[in-house]
Amino acid sequence: MTTRPLILLDPHPRASTDIFDDETRRALDGLGEIVEHAGGPMPAALVEQHLPRASLLLGQTDLPAERLARAPNLRGVINVETNFLANIDYETCFSRGIHVLTPGSAFAPVVAEMALAMAIDLARGITGADRAMRAGDEAWGLAGNTGCFMFSGSAVGLVGYGDLGRALHRLLAPFGCRVRAFDPWLPDYFLRAQGVEPTSLDEVLAQSRTVFVFAGVSSENAGFIARPQFETMQPGSSFLLLSRAAVVDFPEMLRQARIGRLRVATDVFPSEPLAADDPARSTPNLLLSAHRAGALVEALHDIGRQAVADAGLILRGLAPVVCRRAQRETVGRSRSKPIEMS
Amino acid sequence: MTTRPLILLDPHPRASTDIFDDETRRALDGLGEIVEHAGGPMPAALVEQHLPRASLLLGQTDLPAERLARAPNLRGVINVETNFLANIDYETCFSRGIHVLTPGSAFAPVVAEMALAMAIDLARGITGADRAMRAGDEAWGLAGNTGCFMFSGSAVGLVGYGDLGRALHRLLAPFGCRVRAFDPWLPDYFLRAQGVEPTSLDEVLAQSRTVFVFAGVSSENAGFIARPQFETMQPGSSFLLLSRAAVVDFPEMLRQARIGRLRVATDVFPSEPLAADDPARSTPNLLLSAHRAGALVEALHDIGRQAVADAGLILRGLAPVVCRRAQRETVGRSRSKPIEMS
Amino acid sequence: MTTRPLILLDPHPRASTDIFDDETRRALDGLGEIVEHAGGPMPAALVEQHLPRASLLLGQTDLPAERLARAPNLRGVINVETNFLANIDYETCFSRGIHVLTPGSAFAPVVAEMALAMAIDLARGITGADRAMRAGDEAWGLAGNTGCFMFSGSAVGLVGYGDLGRALHRLLAPFGCRVRAFDPWLPDYFLRAQGVEPTSLDEVLAQSRTVFVFAGVSSENAGFIARPQFETMQPGSSFLLLSRAAVVDFPEMLRQARIGRLRVATDVFPSEPLAADDPARSTPNLLLSAHRAGALVEALHDIGRQAVADAGLILRGLAPVVCRRAQRETVGRSRSKPIEMS
Amino acid sequence: MTTRPLILLDPHPRASTDIFDDETRRALDGLGEIVEHAGGPMPAALVEQHLPRASLLLGQTDLPAERLARAPNLRGVINVETNFLANIDYETCFSRGIHVLTPGSAFAPVVAEMALAMAIDLARGITGADRAMRAGDEAWGLAGNTGCFMFSGSAVGLVGYGDLGRALHRLLAPFGCRVRAFDPWLPDYFLRAQGVEPTSLDEVLAQSRTVFVFAGVSSENAGFIARPQFETMQPGSSFLLLSRAAVVDFPEMLRQARIGRLRVATDVFPSEPLAADDPARSTPNLLLSAHRAGALVEALHDIGRQAVADAGLILRGLAPVVCRRAQRETVGRSRSKPIEMS
Repeated sequence: MTTRPLILLDPHPRASTDIFDDETRRALDGLGEIVEHAGGPMPAALVEQHLPRASLLLGQTDLPAERLARAPNLRGVINVETNFLANIDYETCFSRGIHVLTPGSAFAPVVAEMALAMAIDLARGITGADRAMRAGDEAWGLAGNTGCFMFSGSAVGLVGYGDLGRALHRLLAPFGCRVRAFDPWLPDYFLRAQGVEPTSLDEVLAQSRTVFVFAGVSSENAGFIARPQFETMQPGSSFLLLSRAAVVDFPEMLRQARIGRLRVATDVFPSEPLAADDPARSTPNLLLSAHRAGALVEALHDIGRQAVADAGLILRGLAPVVCRRAQRETVGRSRSKPIEMS
Repeated sequence: MTTRPLILLDPHPRASTDIFDDETRRALDGLGEIVEHAGGPMPAALVEQHLPRASLLLGQTDLPAERLARAPNLRGVINVETNFLANIDYETCFSRGIHVLTPGSAFAPVVAEMALAMAIDLARGITGADRAMRAGDEAWGLAGNTGCFMFSGSAVGLVGYGDLGRALHRLLAPFGCRVRAFDPWLPDYFLRAQGVEPTSLDEVLAQSRTVFVFAGVSSENAGFIARPQFETMQPGSSFLLLSRAAVVDFPEMLRQARIGRLRVATDVFPSEPLAADDPARSTPNLLLSAHRAGALVEALHDIGRQAVADAGLILRGLAPVVCRRAQRETVGRSRSKPIEMS
Repeated sequence: MTTRPLILLDPHPRASTDIFDDETRRALDGLGEIVEHAGGPMPAALVEQHLPRASLLLGQTDLPAERLARAPNLRGVINVETNFLANIDYETCFSRGIHVLTPGSAFAPVVAEMALAMAIDLARGITGADRAMRAGDEAWGLAGNTGCFMFSGSAVGLVGYGDLGRALHRLLAPFGCRVRAFDPWLPDYFLRAQGVEPTSLDEVLAQSRTVFVFAGVSSENAGFIARPQFETMQPGSSFLLLSRAAVVDFPEMLRQARIGRLRVATDVFPSEPLAADDPARSTPNLLLSAHRAGALVEALHDIGRQAVADAGLILRGLAPVVCRRAQRETVGRSRSKPIEMS
Repeated sequence: MTTRPLILLDPHPRASTDIFDDETRRALDGLGEIVEHAGGPMPAALVEQHLPRASLLLGQTDLPAERLARAPNLRGVINVETNFLANIDYETCFSRGIHVLTPGSAFAPVVAEMALAMAIDLARGITGADRAMRAGDEAWGLAGNTGCFMFSGSAVGLVGYGDLGRALHRLLAPFGCRVRAFDPWLPDYFLRAQGVEPTSLDEVLAQSRTVFVFAGVSSENAGFIARPQFETMQPGSSFLLLSRAAVVDFPEMLRQARIGRLRVATDVFPSEPLAADDPARSTPNLLLSAHRAGALVEALHDIGRQAVADAGLILRGLAPVVCRRAQRETVGRSRSKPIEMS
């Protein structure tokens, strides 16, 4: 009799019902014996009871060296919160060949479509025009388009060309935009092969009518877009922040919108939820979004699908191909805090 | 000595400076001798003085049969207002081989990008979320996305597959949407060749999560989308009106938004500008746009470029290929009123 | 009782069974009463008997002015041989508003895919390498690729941007080629809108590594690519002739292949079939095709589908949108001979 | 004073002048101090002299455990022959975090364009028609296309969806083909995300009019396409072999061509060069290519560009993103022999 592989499912702070649709859950159940805990982190006793037999862990469970030593069968850890945390002894995982993965690209398609719509909104004044009609002070036709520009054919700049940048770039294909990208972690060869022009941060900012910021926060880049960088941008350009508030000088970004130098959209804020009296709430030339760009059921379900796809490969003795792998070089650099709940 | 061809330029209600950028104006001047009138319709005396020698007319000048009889050299009439009016004896033009053209597709790209952004806005709640943050009653993350759906991969329906429908369809390419189209003037063969599924109006409405109405008004289709048609749509779907208000039952469309059955966006209204106390101004689930979708400098300049491209062909004795031609079958059916000023 | 419209079907030199698949034939039969003649041109008596009642004619029947005078109900003539001939009084048709159409683009997709494959064949030496292996004198690997080049990313030139050029251009999309086009009948605006660079003939020839000739023969352009034009091309470039032999100096084209200056592919010859002792048969650096590029069942069936699609529109009182229209400006210029049988 | 990193360059059996164009060589020289050996494998003495200081190795040098123990600074090994060999202690590399990479996708674009051209050649009879004209027994027009089919819109099957399959799939985009893929190492989720239909081998063979075999040889799949699999294919279909001869029953493949059941193209042979009297040389319905599909200067130069791009990242302390990584799971499975010279 064959023993089925044991899979620990410890998805907190996500709920397994949020990330697995019915079909994916059935596929997961078909892969092995599932030991699951819901409603909070899996208790240590339960972890310790099953870890010795576990082949896979789906979740964010603490895995210090001593725990990993008690997990001789562990072949993969799939973080379903989608941020690698500092609670794993990565070095041990790498040297033993335990895959540490996360379905980080699950949010890219939903963020990308919202980013594109927000960019066209800024270029064409969509939200502002609706607000004007509700206030009764709209202008019609040509007069209602003062300061607007055609997004199609305009110059686009991407700050960060990871999953989000790539997903947005894919949507830009029919728009005939010249696309420049700045990403210090990617070589020019890679960017050119993807069809974007590799450039410096300054050139992206100075040459683009619309700038999308997709860069994550690392230990090195906090606040790397500050007043000098904003001043590099052409007046009347659009600036969209869709990754983390900490990569920009946030008050300066708001100031650029307030004085009408730039059009700005942001999905993230230095502290969330935003204080009731935060000046951002009444800033003009600003499109506000309450960290909603990625938080869609379709994206959460994709986390589950990606996790189960790679889980299946690992259990068959094959290399995972879907999720992002933790890398020795970068796993320590990210500064993202764990999500409260997204 | 060769005489240069004479071109009458009578662009009212547009201004020639609105439709010709510098480069295009130079190209026009290079084609022949221009007789131009600005600030209103060209006076009859001026028309009559030059018509006998004119090879081309760019504008909306009245051309009854008796005038055409006095224009033996006329080879083309290019309407730059972009609606064929009833002030021309079309039959005479057709039988004499005088091309009657209009750069009708000039507005398609700018309308299409706004239509796409509005559709994603409705699906993802962009304008509403900004309004909520300004009112201080926003919900964050997942909670802020109740009722929203991912536009990518969703079913799209096009009512009308003329220039606007085609331009929007082009932008949809990377989104992986299944696209159905209803257009009674186009055969299934044509629609399939373009990559859309030809269907009935009912099927477009019932099967699509997002419906774009691009159909122009004809003598037959006024109000063809009324309560029975709206009721065919799935609750929570999006309905976008970008052509003419008269094709829908407008109050019913507003009602569908008000009761929360549909999400609606409209760029057009039964009477424009909208009355200050019009209920549309405070209707929820409605994205309002003051006839701004097409009225962009880039589109106006494209009118000029299209007109000059075909003017050049006609003067060289070649058939025009850029503008839309007036057709014996349809030129009498359109009910568009002349623009006041767009 | 309504009388069904009468449709004359006189497809000679094509057979109606060649151009209509079952589904299309049923659609045609559904449009009206069909009077058909097979096995040769429709006898004059039969034409005269039915012409007075005919609404549509599908075929190449002679239609001089006096016959048209006896056809008061005729609304459209659809040539299914796909060349407009001089046997119609076009002026009468134009002035009466009788559509004269031909499904000329039916062959474009099949010609385009063959043209692309032939271009890659020339660049990569496919046919030559197969011949070498059969002769036992092949070279392997790198050594077998002397003089070859990667087609992807190379410069392409199109001489003629009608249906064939457009269909080929569509297939080039993923190849990353810079595409220049020369077409004296199309304005730069049109070519740029299609995504090709408008250039002179000389520049197309001098700058392209692969030149496709799709230009039809007119009364003006016979032999317009002769020794001076071939000499403009870079040595080692590819030249593909897919339209009509008469547009080039054919012996010079063969000479360029024979001396190894150019790689040449041709689907057409000055006289077809080719004489048994024609030197082309043994010319090196030449890819020979016996006028096969368009003659595929799928293309013939598309003739029928296009014809029936527009026939349906015309009978409903709508303007045709699928077939190419005869144009006053150009219908007299084409020099194509009637096909014997293709 | 900073010491520049030391890079060992031991490219045999490739020549560094074959894989680095001038610009790439300059980039490589800019990365550090290069110790290079040409004209054969780097002598052991030279390897041992520099290995202790080496940060990177570009080449196929033997790296048993004891050698790796003497290379404390080694951070990456980039195989430029593009096959991982059994001469490295991979386990040591993995546990120490030494990247083992190869620019395996360098050949994909050149192979893909040739594969596409060969597929259209088989569908449309291009090579055969040229041969017929040279033999003087060609048929013209429709008669010359007996048994041919339109490739555009036909069903395509991919056996193997690695770099080659992906590159070919990209070129298929405008052809409107339904694409099925069989790849036992990739999950359905991955294939669907790429836009192909995941299916079984049998279904790919039975449902596709054209089958491309891109699968590499592993320890498990030798000869996995044999008579039962060929018999599954529809008569008149095309079968193209572009990876390794060992994955098919080669004599049976030839037999299928000889009896006219399938059209076959192959770039690879069980033993190369092929014997002068090999029956393949005179087999009909067969397109022969002497292992030429990948061996193009452009592909070799891409090896260099990919290697230098990742070398730069590794030396900056970043994770490589361009080359393929050796995987614990699969590095032992490949059965490719070292190239003699390609």
